[in-house]
Amino acid sequence: MKKVLVINGPNLNMLGVREPGIYGTASLGAILHGLNELAKELSIELESFQSNHEGAIIDKIHEAFGTKDGILINPGAFTHYSYAIRDALATVQLPTVEVHLSNIHKREEFRHTSVTAPVVIGQICGFGSASYELGLRALVPHM
Amino acid sequence: MKKVLVINGPNLNMLGVREPGIYGTASLGAILHGLNELAKELSIELESFQSNHEGAIIDKIHEAFGTKDGILINPGAFTHYSYAIRDALATVQLPTVEVHLSNIHKREEFRHTSVTAPVVIGQICGFGSASYELGLRALVPHM
Amino acid sequence: MKKVLVINGPNLNMLGVREPGIYGTASLGAILHGLNELAKELSIELESFQSNHEGAIIDKIHEAFGTKDGILINPGAFTHYSYAIRDALATVQLPTVEVHLSNIHKREEFRHTSVTAPVVIGQICGFGSASYELGLRALVPHM
Amino acid sequence: MKKVLVINGPNLNMLGVREPGIYGTASLGAILHGLNELAKELSIELESFQSNHEGAIIDKIHEAFGTKDGILINPGAFTHYSYAIRDALATVQLPTVEVHLSNIHKREEFRHTSVTAPVVIGQICGFGSASYELGLRALVPHM
Amino acid sequence: MKKVLVINGPNLNMLGVREPGIYGTASLGAILHGLNELAKELSIELESFQSNHEGAIIDKIHEAFGTKDGILINPGAFTHYSYAIRDALATVQLPTVEVHLSNIHKREEFRHTSVTAPVVIGQICGFGSASYELGLRALVPHM
Amino acid sequence: MKKVLVINGPNLNMLGVREPGIYGTASLGAILHGLNELAKELSIELESFQSNHEGAIIDKIHEAFGTKDGILINPGAFTHYSYAIRDALATVQLPTVEVHLSNIHKREEFRHTSVTAPVVIGQICGFGSASYELGLRALVPHM
Amino acid sequence: MKKVLVINGPNLNMLGVREPGIYGTASLGAILHGLNELAKELSIELESFQSNHEGAIIDKIHEAFGTKDGILINPGAFTHYSYAIRDALATVQLPTVEVHLSNIHKREEFRHTSVTAPVVIGQICGFGSASYELGLRALVPHM
Amino acid sequence: MKKVLVINGPNLNMLGVREPGIYGTASLGAILHGLNELAKELSIELESFQSNHEGAIIDKIHEAFGTKDGILINPGAFTHYSYAIRDALATVQLPTVEVHLSNIHKREEFRHTSVTAPVVIGQICGFGSASYELGLRALVPHM
Amino acid sequence: MKKVLVINGPNLNMLGVREPGIYGTASLGAILHGLNELAKELSIELESFQSNHEGAIIDKIHEAFGTKDGILINPGAFTHYSYAIRDALATVQLPTVEVHLSNIHKREEFRHTSVTAPVVIGQICGFGSASYELGLRALVPHM
Amino acid sequence: MKKVLVINGPNLNMLGVREPGIYGTASLGAILHGLNELAKELSIELESFQSNHEGAIIDKIHEAFGTKDGILINPGAFTHYSYAIRDALATVQLPTVEVHLSNIHKREEFRHTSVTAPVVIGQICGFGSASYELGLRALVPHM
Amino acid sequence: MKKVLVINGPNLNMLGVREPGIYGTASLGAILHGLNELAKELSIELESFQSNHEGAIIDKIHEAFGTKDGILINPGAFTHYSYAIRDALATVQLPTVEVHLSNIHKREEFRHTSVTAPVVIGQICGFGSASYELGLRALVPHM
Amino acid sequence: MKKVLVINGPNLNMLGVREPGIYGTASLGAILHGLNELAKELSIELESFQSNHEGAIIDKIHEAFGTKDGILINPGAFTHYSYAIRDALATVQLPTVEVHLSNIHKREEFRHTSVTAPVVIGQICGFGSASYELGLRALVPHM
Repeated sequence: MKKVLVINGPNLNMLGVREPGIYGTASLGAILHGLNELAKELSIELESFQSNHEGAIIDKIHEAFGTKDGILINPGAFTHYSYAIRDALATVQLPTVEVHLSNIHKREEFRHTSVTAPVVIGQICGFGSASYELGLRALVPHM
Repeated sequence: MKKVLVINGPNLNMLGVREPGIYGTASLGAILHGLNELAKELSIELESFQSNHEGAIIDKIHEAFGTKDGILINPGAFTHYSYAIRDALATVQLPTVEVHLSNIHKREEFRHTSVTAPVVIGQICGFGSASYELGLRALVPHM
Repeated sequence: MKKVLVINGPNLNMLGVREPGIYGTASLGAILHGLNELAKELSIELESFQSNHEGAIIDKIHEAFGTKDGILINPGAFTHYSYAIRDALATVQLPTVEVHLSNIHKREEFRHTSVTAPVVIGQICGFGSASYELGLRALVPHM
Repeated sequence: MKKVLVINGPNLNMLGVREPGIYGTASLGAILHGLNELAKELSIELESFQSNHEGAIIDKIHEAFGTKDGILINPGAFTHYSYAIRDALATVQLPTVEVHLSNIHKREEFRHTSVTAPVVIGQICGFGSASYELGLRALVPHM
Repeated sequence: MKKVLVINGPNLNMLGVREPGIYGTASLGAILHGLNELAKELSIELESFQSNHEGAIIDKIHEAFGTKDGILINPGAFTHYSYAIRDALATVQLPTVEVHLSNIHKREEFRHTSVTAPVVIGQICGFGSASYELGLRALVPHM
Repeated sequence: MKKVLVINGPNLNMLGVREPGIYGTASLGAILHGLNELAKELSIELESFQSNHEGAIIDKIHEAFGTKDGILINPGAFTHYSYAIRDALATVQLPTVEVHLSNIHKREEFRHTSVTAPVVIGQICGFGSASYELGLRALVPHM
Repeated sequence: MKKVLVINGPNLNMLGVREPGIYGTASLGAILHGLNELAKELSIELESFQSNHEGAIIDKIHEAFGTKDGILINPGAFTHYSYAIRDALATVQLPTVEVHLSNIHKREEFRHTSVTAPVVIGQICGFGSASYELGLRALVPHM
Repeated sequence: MKKVLVINGPNLNMLGVREPGIYGTASLGAILHGLNELAKELSIELESFQSNHEGAIIDKIHEAFGTKDGILINPGAFTHYSYAIRDALATVQLPTVEVHLSNIHKREEFRHTSVTAPVVIGQICGFGSASYELGLRALVPHM
Repeated sequence: MKKVLVINGPNLNMLGVREPGIYGTASLGAILHGLNELAKELSIELESFQSNHEGAIIDKIHEAFGTKDGILINPGAFTHYSYAIRDALATVQLPTVEVHLSNIHKREEFRHTSVTAPVVIGQICGFGSASYELGLRALVPHM
Repeated sequence: MKKVLVINGPNLNMLGVREPGIYGTASLGAILHGLNELAKELSIELESFQSNHEGAIIDKIHEAFGTKDGILINPGAFTHYSYAIRDALATVQLPTVEVHLSNIHKREEFRHTSVTAPVVIGQICGFGSASYELGLRALVPHM
Repeated sequence: MKKVLVINGPNLNMLGVREPGIYGTASLGAILHGLNELAKELSIELESFQSNHEGAIIDKIHEAFGTKDGILINPGAFTHYSYAIRDALATVQLPTVEVHLSNIHKREEFRHTSVTAPVVIGQICGFGSASYELGLRALVPHM
Repeated sequence: MKKVLVINGPNLNMLGVREPGIYGTASLGAILHGLNELAKELSIELESFQSNHEGAIIDKIHEAFGTKDGILINPGAFTHYSYAIRDALATVQLPTVEVHLSNIHKREEFRHTSVTAPVVIGQICGFGSASYELGLRALVPHM
């Protein structure tokens, strides 16, 4: 059974509360619940981690080194400036998929750039909670 | 049964031949074959169209207006400058998903910008032929 | 009787359908009908041409060389990147007026720049179908 | 009878004298005379105002609030930097058309940008004194 | 009793009329009335000046030299380009506070830059008429 | 009684020690003491929080959701790059005022941009510890 | 005998007519005639193709794959924005030389950049019809 | 006897008072007194004009048309943004020399650009009041 | 005996594992071991600290205030965006040397800029673990 | 017999040694030997000059004035910044062709710009030593 | 008697020959002859130096240290990029005036920037050979 | 015994004289004397070379090819624009260390960029004469 670490970055713990016009009304718990259903179907064991702390996310990525087979990450706002998370992903060299709930290309200029995207396999954005499920499916053949 | 138009932009007819280090060795035919399998499973009727002509792609998008339920598009290099295709997609207002075989964020600077992404539901890039299958799955709930 | 070629660029065939909040509800046929009325009044013979193909527009501009007295053009999205159409207009050296239905300065940043405007007599934008009629009037004294 | 305020910005009082290669040999008086002929035809009452003072132009725009039905403005060089005139036009919310004698897109880089254009109905440039007449015609249906 | 010059730049005479969604419905008179109440409380003598003329504002700033103890200024649109007002403020070296009714960081890109802010004590923006009252309080300990 | 969360970002715990030429000699404790005096006067209950950890500030902002009536924040250097804090503020939607001790427009280029300012009510900078008191006053009518 | 495809992009069919001050008075036919003379001398079989359609040029480049030994291309205005032609050239991997009649570095800023040059062997510009002959000579040792 | 108009822009009336570290302690009167001495020597009749009003400076430049033989101008801060004064100078086509008291290249970035310099004979900066005297000498052979 | 705080930023705990082509195969432990040898020789007492948490690094820098004589810091990816660490270093005013294992000028564009370098004594990059030893030597005469 | 000066800029004396992957293994002597063969064939007398000194190259260009009929120049790295060599070429007004061994558009960003190209007849790059021979051929009809 | 070093940069030895439309028909010898006349009048001893070698100019500037009282320099094209000459001038700290024959603000964009101007007393441009005479007069009071 | 070439670029011959606030009061001779002491200790034979001539530095670098084991270079102002020296260093492929006396990141914007740094092993800046000694130590293990 493959093991996947699911990382959610800052403010994603507030999903459902946070700007529902952009992010939808589902809570992070609900999204992860649905993702777990799919994971079972795909024979994948998920570990889920959310933090508003860049450093905690980096620690968690390091921890995945040698213990996980892949990473599914929504870096939240860190997408746009955390070169430290980028380096962490490049360091552990695990197959990684980047996902976003909203279509970042439709929003403010600063959200159009992802500093993490160049070190992952691919990026999926704009499909709400489905972005996670698509991301998990995308990850499978690379583990 | 939902009808989806699959559009492939310039040079994608040369897949398998074209820079296999970046785009893989599968031909477009092979990719579409796999996509049709998935479409059947999802009860979707696909029409596939490839052209190296921006105008032909625009004509085809217009034709989809009122006859299709969604569009799956890999605009190829037009992604980076065809405001005319962007406007075509905005004109017909059909649910549209943009896909790319390669991770455009890992390549030349000019490929980091998509002028079409702001008018679609979402974008998927980097997963080779799987980008298309994920794109089709992503499209379903929006039709 | 002076002969004027009226060129409409990509997506203008979809007028009435296309984002009516921006482009109004009149079809291209209706706009051209009104323009023909004015042309008769001004003793001008119009030929109207619409295409979503950059190349077809260039061919048509070349064709106007020696057969038309002026050009009225709404290059649509090609306004913002078609240096090939710009060169075509510069090549035939016919008096040309550029028109836009919407006020391009009120919209997305990329629409603020016209690559064709530097090779025409003048530009008119923002008045809906009236932009065409004003453009035709503007053209008259230059033919 | 609709009332229109015609505003001419800095240096336009010197028309005929000023760089005739660019601006033509007609004086501002001559241009306004022609415009008045058209205004009569269109049953419009014109008030004409020229000033080299940004503040005086703003005062005049304010004065038009509640007393005029529309504004025809050639802001001259203020086009390129007077955010104060832009705000004045946005403040009074009168239908406004911006005109220029020369094709600003053919000239120095700094003349390609209009800070006032985003708050008017539309812009007409490049037709010499005819720009004013076209502008007046363009204004009519918006009053 | 300390003497403060309150300067309002272009279009602020139109408050209440001007884009109430952004600037509120209070007139400048009403704002100044409230400010005078506070001034009395703080034992400050206010002189209020509004002009749409950059030059008049500069003249007034010079006049304050040696006659006032401080300046409260809302330069309006001049905030974004009047290096001449900036120099005037730097010339007289009076304690100065810059205020804005709206949050300039929430609006168009060009409003994010203040050319006057680097020569004042501090800047207050976004609180409507309260920006003035806060500005006056802020000025007190610097006179 | 309204409850306000006062957040101080990185290095503000070192006030008094840190570059006194720019930030003054008062310690953060002294500033908060003065602010509490004003809070009592305004019938506001303050909770004060300082952290050098971006994540801890985000956690605290989330915690304020449903428990506080407003936020007074000096994000310190995070002002210039923490899109994560910006998103946190946008998420909880509490009335928020941004304050800075120094006039950020007088300092290094990078300090001229605030990524948090577009999601708060308004910004106050340059008045030393008085910035906080003015900020608290500014917050009151929005709670 | 080596086979070379000679591609001429938009507006080059109008040579002789088009801005003779820049492009000279020779027609494309005359240039190709001279080029054929040289080709015979060098034992090369030329096929010549001109189109104003980007898509047609891409189709032709694909067609050369496996049937030609090299490409001589003057992409005309497409030089400056057709990433699709760039990708077509990169796809077929044939030895390619880019030529221009005029010295593109002496002209408008936008002509200084070639998006196709990074995927060809080399570029020759500024020698009028001789650019083609030099280009053909340059191509020989690479086939 | 040649007639020269000496124009001083905004804040130059405050010389001696204004930032003496940059501009020196001589008043404008003193500078003009010295300049008049030199003018007599050179058989030139000076008319001196200072204004903080851009419009008044433009009016004065127009007035010089046909009545003066040359202009000596220190546009002050208008140097950096008044395209209207630039146009005024270009309109009257009088021999003009631009002078600055301080070395504008040693100061803030925005002072490095002169929008008026491209339409004058030459520019002299950095020599304090001597800049004016050098400017007058420079003007003589061009009248 | 002088006391030096050695700070290692994000991902440096993974040295040896992390992209050995760039960072070498030595672990951070090994590097610090070698550095301790040198420290003894130079009669310096080292305290070593590594964290992936920006806030923890700031806390540590503050802690060094009054307890250490100097800082040797490799800020890792924080080098390129942590204005908060920059401010922390400026706050404590301890002699500080910045070191990098790799030559940051040979790598991605974003690594060419250091936001911390302007507040340290000097910077050493490109010498692998020797960068630390050189840094320590460089620090000595400044303590 | 026409006389041509062949100028080779900095580091070209090291050809064969210098980065052979980019510049090939032929020495400059070998390249010039081949070029001399062609020159004889074309009845041209070559003088060859190489220097790593910008000033020496300028001196040599001046010397060619009145003594040579044309210049063939590979300015090496001076291509990208020597406005002094550009001015020298513009000064002597001799027919000049610029050549480069490598395709400068395939290399570092800074090599994409030539400051000398705008003052020569044309530019040839990417063909190794053949660039020189093509350049000489290109020069002939212009002498 | 004060001693002044007159430095002329690259290509100025070709004056009279070089683009006379821009630089006039006087030779450098003629200009220096006139300048010597003025020098005598002003009791100044001139030493004149021209070189196309940046290094020779730097050497000469160093040589002036302790032997000259001032420098008059026309750095020619070095004006726009020679930070080494800039540093040389800053090193010797002699009163220096920068002159240009042409108005650099009327010419190509790259000539608008002077890297040497920030380290001299002032700059004079646009007056042909008179620029030198004005420059010498400007220098006198600073020696 | 390893042989190292020590190169000092423009103006470094003036050390001690040149801006002592930035560069210290030690002469270049004194610095080199100290460096020689260290060289002896490290069993390295130094050859020292200083020139204000870019070409002479390039010649010297070439000369080192095959005769030296490493280069220690302080390119002075050439650091910021001499692509020719960069190419020279890349040509000879000797282990090279770049040093600067001052911390270039604390000074003018133009000094923040090194065009030579990408082709050396590493860079050391900010430690005065110690930068050289550290640089020599850094070089040893690479020879």
